[in-house]
Amino acid sequence: MNVNGKPMRTIWVGDDGKSVTIIDQTYLPHKLQTTDLNTLEDAVSAIADMKVRGAPCIGATAAYGMAVAVRNDPSEAAIKQAYDALNAARPTAVNLKWALDECMDTIDGLDESDRASALFQRAGEICDEDVDICSKIGDYGLDLLKNISKEKEGDTVNILTHCNAGWVATVDWGTAIAPIYKAFDAGLDVHVWVDETRPRSQGARLTAWELEQHGVPYTVITDNSGGHLMQNGLVDICIVGTDRTTATGDVCNKIGTYLKALAAFDNEVPFYVGAPSRSIDWEMQDGLTEIPIEVRSGEEEVGWIFGRDEDGVLRRVTTMPDPSKSRNDAFDVTPREYITGLITERGVCDANRDALRVLFPEKG
Amino acid sequence: MNVNGKPMRTIWVGDDGKSVTIIDQTYLPHKLQTTDLNTLEDAVSAIADMKVRGAPCIGATAAYGMAVAVRNDPSEAAIKQAYDALNAARPTAVNLKWALDECMDTIDGLDESDRASALFQRAGEICDEDVDICSKIGDYGLDLLKNISKEKEGDTVNILTHCNAGWVATVDWGTAIAPIYKAFDAGLDVHVWVDETRPRSQGARLTAWELEQHGVPYTVITDNSGGHLMQNGLVDICIVGTDRTTATGDVCNKIGTYLKALAAFDNEVPFYVGAPSRSIDWEMQDGLTEIPIEVRSGEEEVGWIFGRDEDGVLRRVTTMPDPSKSRNDAFDVTPREYITGLITERGVCDANRDALRVLFPEKG
Repeated sequence: MNVNGKPMRTIWVGDDGKSVTIIDQTYLPHKLQTTDLNTLEDAVSAIADMKVRGAPCIGATAAYGMAVAVRNDPSEAAIKQAYDALNAARPTAVNLKWALDECMDTIDGLDESDRASALFQRAGEICDEDVDICSKIGDYGLDLLKNISKEKEGDTVNILTHCNAGWVATVDWGTAIAPIYKAFDAGLDVHVWVDETRPRSQGARLTAWELEQHGVPYTVITDNSGGHLMQNGLVDICIVGTDRTTATGDVCNKIGTYLKALAAFDNEVPFYVGAPSRSIDWEMQDGLTEIPIEVRSGEEEVGWIFGRDEDGVLRRVTTMPDPSKSRNDAFDVTPREYITGLITERGVCDANRDALRVLFPEKG
Repeated sequence: MNVNGKPMRTIWVGDDGKSVTIIDQTYLPHKLQTTDLNTLEDAVSAIADMKVRGAPCIGATAAYGMAVAVRNDPSEAAIKQAYDALNAARPTAVNLKWALDECMDTIDGLDESDRASALFQRAGEICDEDVDICSKIGDYGLDLLKNISKEKEGDTVNILTHCNAGWVATVDWGTAIAPIYKAFDAGLDVHVWVDETRPRSQGARLTAWELEQHGVPYTVITDNSGGHLMQNGLVDICIVGTDRTTATGDVCNKIGTYLKALAAFDNEVPFYVGAPSRSIDWEMQDGLTEIPIEVRSGEEEVGWIFGRDEDGVLRRVTTMPDPSKSRNDAFDVTPREYITGLITERGVCDANRDALRVLFPEKG
């Protein structure tokens, strides 16, 4: 999508065909900082330190991480090391392993000298495919928003979203936000309630920044507010992303998603998930017991809050007597019964095994 | 409760019998700052700017505000002005109006020259009664915690609380936290999950500070986390406060309380409210439609986050591209069906009209 009026992706290869650059999202919205991935370590750090985040963007970065690592050392040992290091960088998003396995398939049987170029090519395809998938999710989600707009006779459609599942969580377009961009571009009157999404404030930082850049009307609210807004008829639909979707339709997403799903259910507000098939773990049956939930540093992320002060200086502050006395589970699981539907690249379906298998019969 | 090992209240009269001092809670936990209330304007500002907050503490401050105002000018016109200004300082907590009406009853029929001393005396009584009420809520709540401890064979009892309903929200003891102090003092193994409670971080700032000072084990979590912890069996009971309870048992409390109640209900975790009768609005039947919900500045409170930096300097930072694009509803309403029980100063009861009338038959 556009940044200062110019189209941009979250990750790209330079004109030399091999330098890989990302937007370092830890500086957003304060500064548009890019950084190069020259080594395996650069790619692992980009994922683990959340310079990139969002399941599809993590997958794309992992693929280019493999390409960079193999360019530097195409040996079997180095490939295994790269696979393991990237796969361990973050535990919850399933797109990471999916992308790494794609890379392994790509170089299967290739001579050492052919591996890097094959991986660069496959990583580029993964990115292009991701853009296409997200665009399709946007189109299917657009139909939902059009229907609400029609029901409201053209009045503003209020969409609540949690965390960031916009274009910076993917390669472009986003998952949850893609329908909103399509609707805005189509002239629908839309307004987005953006959950702040503590501890890393990915809603207030990233979703707000994206929407601001594209000109979409939005309002940031605290994570505590969504239920109250729904009780008062101020939310027409919730759309969120997913880091891992089970074959049965449970959705693991940023911590706090479950609370919004409960409130949506209680107030009969439709609750949808932008769910590319690459986020679906076809092996998993029960989200609550099977999905590994990342626990990150409480002190670093809950205890200290990073932002810019009134002079524009980037600093961190704490509100707590002792920032170390905190806990930081990064994701939660929303059981399928609270989900109205999954918006996939092949259409919208109910959140259950049978409905998913109708759209993806090859996963039988 | 204790501050640096010495007992303290939130509001007190000096040895001269007329100087009124409060803890300015906007500086906690970074600094123990007190401030004097010498005029009506001081008292209004203390409430409106949230130097004091918490329904019982607001009530106590309003009573002393009337006393100070009448000391400065005991005329009918000045009394009316003081009543109106204090009553308008914040809209949601019903204790405010209750305390002001107590003051009006106190001076009814008194000569101008007798009014101030009568008000100082009544304000002092209101404070002492509040301490007694909170202590009794603590005793009744203690029984609940003892039962859980017994069921868990002495294992740690994990209590989740939202915002601050501890001693700094009252005159002493607190409402939701009083049972926890009583349990800790009685030697029960307790641990508190403290919701950060954005936007003003009253959990991370105030509840954490109180518990830290008293030595009660606690962990701060983001407002997004409670549902996940409940899904994973890490919460035995939720206890929160209330700013206004309807005669029918609906509870209006800090924004986000409703989301925790939904999660507790979904996971069969008992959800209790520390509810002094002074917080009950016997006129109101339906919390969702009748209770006025305060909307505060989004830019000031959601957009900017106040804390101390790594050098101990107090500053504010923003995470957002534009701090003004935010909204800040201060409270929400938890419908009675999600509340396991109300802990009042006369015992624990179900959250409904009949049960409340059994405990408070004089409210007919």
